[in-house]
Amino acid sequence: MSNVQLDHLREEMDKINQELLKSISKRANIAKEIGDIKEKQGVPKFDPVRENKMLEKIISLNDGPFEDGTIRHLFKQIFKASLDLQSKEHKKHLLV
Amino acid sequence: MSNVQLDHLREEMDKINQELLKSISKRANIAKEIGDIKEKQGVPKFDPVRENKMLEKIISLNDGPFEDGTIRHLFKQIFKASLDLQSKEHKKHLLV
Repeated sequence: MSNVQLDHLREEMDKINQELLKSISKRANIAKEIGDIKEKQGVPKFDPVRENKMLEKIISLNDGPFEDGTIRHLFKQIFKASLDLQSKEHKKHLLV
Repeated sequence: MSNVQLDHLREEMDKINQELLKSISKRANIAKEIGDIKEKQGVPKFDPVRENKMLEKIISLNDGPFEDGTIRHLFKQIFKASLDLQSKEHKKHLLV
């Protein structure tokens, strides 16, 4: 019985992994678009005030099971990856 | 014009952040359920073979813009947070 349950939960988890991948990728594409606009405006891409606002909004919506600190950590990693991507894109543009 | 565009992209980003929070939390709840079953079965919660399979499946579906290595890193952080949560829950059970 439990193994059927396990298989079912693992299927659900695989689906959520795919949803997460989609959302993370979609988020990265939007971050790139924002980066391009900022690039044209000559505005720095890293905006700690906006990043903090985003984080606080996310934390305010957190009902668990992860603690706020864990959610903060995970999203900071996602933010950082997006920023790294924007910098890489910028360097690519410079090299072309 | 660009600021209207920026505002629009930021709204989209806020929506995706919320989707991500939901998916990450849903995933954590499923991981907890899996942990509970394994607990009852006396099976170790960390299963590197299953974790690797999940990662490879996710990577095989990655169309960018993040590189595979970045996706791997982000998901490993999510996996680790889930495992930490399972251990904490286990300790809580032991203390009750």
